[in-house]
Amino acid sequence: MSTNNKQTSLTIGLFGFGVVGECLYQVIANTPTLNATIKKVCIKHPEKKRNAPHSLFTTDSQLLLDDEEINVIVELTNDPTDAYRIVTTAIKGNKSVVTANKKMIADNLKELIELQSKFGVPLLYEAACCASIPVIRNLEEYYDNDLLHSISGIINGSTNYILTKIAEENKSFEDALNEAQLAGFAETDPSLDVEGIDAVNKLSILLTHAYGSITLPSHILHAGITQLQLSDAAYAKEKGYVIKLLAHARKLADGSIIAFVLPRFVKADERLREVRNEYNGVEIESSLADKQFFYGKGAGGFPTASAVLSDLSALRYNYKYEYKKLNYTPPTLLSNEFYLHVSVSFNNTQIVAVQQFAQVDEWVINESGCRISGIVHASSLLQNDWWRQPGVSLVVLPQSVVEDFSSATTSGILSLIP
Amino acid sequence: MSTNNKQTSLTIGLFGFGVVGECLYQVIANTPTLNATIKKVCIKHPEKKRNAPHSLFTTDSQLLLDDEEINVIVELTNDPTDAYRIVTTAIKGNKSVVTANKKMIADNLKELIELQSKFGVPLLYEAACCASIPVIRNLEEYYDNDLLHSISGIINGSTNYILTKIAEENKSFEDALNEAQLAGFAETDPSLDVEGIDAVNKLSILLTHAYGSITLPSHILHAGITQLQLSDAAYAKEKGYVIKLLAHARKLADGSIIAFVLPRFVKADERLREVRNEYNGVEIESSLADKQFFYGKGAGGFPTASAVLSDLSALRYNYKYEYKKLNYTPPTLLSNEFYLHVSVSFNNTQIVAVQQFAQVDEWVINESGCRISGIVHASSLLQNDWWRQPGVSLVVLPQSVVEDFSSATTSGILSLIP
Repeated sequence: MSTNNKQTSLTIGLFGFGVVGECLYQVIANTPTLNATIKKVCIKHPEKKRNAPHSLFTTDSQLLLDDEEINVIVELTNDPTDAYRIVTTAIKGNKSVVTANKKMIADNLKELIELQSKFGVPLLYEAACCASIPVIRNLEEYYDNDLLHSISGIINGSTNYILTKIAEENKSFEDALNEAQLAGFAETDPSLDVEGIDAVNKLSILLTHAYGSITLPSHILHAGITQLQLSDAAYAKEKGYVIKLLAHARKLADGSIIAFVLPRFVKADERLREVRNEYNGVEIESSLADKQFFYGKGAGGFPTASAVLSDLSALRYNYKYEYKKLNYTPPTLLSNEFYLHVSVSFNNTQIVAVQQFAQVDEWVINESGCRISGIVHASSLLQNDWWRQPGVSLVVLPQSVVEDFSSATTSGILSLIP
Repeated sequence: MSTNNKQTSLTIGLFGFGVVGECLYQVIANTPTLNATIKKVCIKHPEKKRNAPHSLFTTDSQLLLDDEEINVIVELTNDPTDAYRIVTTAIKGNKSVVTANKKMIADNLKELIELQSKFGVPLLYEAACCASIPVIRNLEEYYDNDLLHSISGIINGSTNYILTKIAEENKSFEDALNEAQLAGFAETDPSLDVEGIDAVNKLSILLTHAYGSITLPSHILHAGITQLQLSDAAYAKEKGYVIKLLAHARKLADGSIIAFVLPRFVKADERLREVRNEYNGVEIESSLADKQFFYGKGAGGFPTASAVLSDLSALRYNYKYEYKKLNYTPPTLLSNEFYLHVSVSFNNTQIVAVQQFAQVDEWVINESGCRISGIVHASSLLQNDWWRQPGVSLVVLPQSVVEDFSSATTSGILSLIP
């Protein structure tokens, strides 16, 4: 029994032969039913020993890009500049492309979508967001952004690994980071992980597929986990919370789309709390499907290779992202006009003043320092850096986004503050 | 900015206008970007009041099936016989088909795949398994069954709702079933749910997409939750377990594929334990992606409509299931040559004797009756019905499948049993 689907046979030019590349090579070589061959692999360091025939490798990228027999370029380098050149040249040469480079995609998404449209070839990048979790494909399947209420996710495996080790094994930040690097979960440059840059790159990509908004990562409110203080851990423990680095996007009642990547206190009954170590988890809430939760390994060679394989599989039936939400009129623009429930800890009242808050709900001074819990405006966080100063940390409270808040309302406790 | 994907415009003939059908109608009518129209709806009871123009409805199925303008049939009736006739006629008429009827699919999958192949039209049925969870699509994306270790899932929302209410609110089986029916989670005929038939229908479909095995549901070892005894609940409580109706498929070390739907004791640290009420959850384990977990509403009108919409979206880029694992040689056949760790409670030693067990690990007699924990052979469960007698219940222990067991090994405790 067989189906009569027209299947494209894939002749692949592969860039990069790290853990992901090698794993991909092995699976393709051992799976004839795949109808795919890796014809050539372009690498940077020919002197390294590789588990594949010497004749497979070259350092000349044009050898792959100019080869008319190669109809698919798989880009697995870790250099965004190289990746940009490879991917755009391949598309212009009418080759289908699979890439895992989230930074390159997030920084150039508008141009990459235009190029795909102009040259009529697919560019797939499921591996760029949450590795093995098919979140992009799933968001693409949703018809209409009216249906999609929110996305909340732990989408950086490295920081989640670090936060888990700190919370569960009382490890120091440095020890936990070292462990994450040794285990292969951290980016080559760990600041991409711990400063929240990797997560915001991914969120920027997800926003396009979820809501049709193309927003540069730098325009999205974000922070990492380096500012977190011991007092935050103590506060979390006292309240029964854990701290997670959360990416969140939401459609507000007025139709505007908001997004951020920030540390957040997570309550005991929240599903995301169970996402531990290098795992990722994404909760999607929509009017029809209600809450859906996707969980899987979000970092590491094999899970990433698995997502690349899934893209290659999709290429065989000529799957493309439709980006249909981009065609909405008026186009969806990200708004930073929203309020957040936060808790800010600090030890210098010169830096953090009640004036930074739209509403103050609690003001605590004790042996571990000062903490103000209240409501802040997102734009004010984007425009000011008081909350990024040494010794200051900002963690979103479980209530998270304030759905309707009038800044005219001020809390009664303000008059009590000296 | 727009992509140049060739999109098929969908003119839909819809069968059935229950909760799912009406929800689908509303979303399509309100989403012009969908490029889809429902031209005609075939119903059985024209006298019912409907929230749609009278002219949309007909009781004449041929009016839809013979209409050349209609290129997609969406089948949402709840009668498997009707569904079979509608779906096969539509395929033979070169119309694409979306259906949610798991029983009809599971009972006729071989023929339906051959028909699709012969007429070259897609038949999609994501809504048939776990409603809003895209589990079929995800299994299709896996290349090779060598990579897929196992699938474990809670895939019947109604029984899971009942088990949750019994465990958490001490409800009786009857009260919990009534509640599930009132909430719209139960099948029209509740025995399909509580006897495990709905779950085994779904598992049979999943087996095809996961491992390329077409097996009639009746050939898969299965039971429901009607045999469960109060003593099982007490045993679960004592051991810190909860009871779930689990569907499981696994590739054993010798390459054979095994599957069953049975109640199982679930430990505190298992992810499936957190799947409560009408929710479904599926854990897929593979060598590359490792453990992936999908969670969402598995029953109810809106989640089902959401899956139908996702299939319609896929039809626009001419997506078909590839069924590529069916082309493996030798074809994958389901094996019932495996052993299970089970716990059997009973009150009549005439029915349950140690001879039914390949190994006995524990034998307990107390005020709540008798319980034997040990290892049984799956074939022996399929061929004998001692464990389906009144007053007898069989629950799989957390260790579940015995990966290597030699029946020559007999436990030392046998000699102690009178």
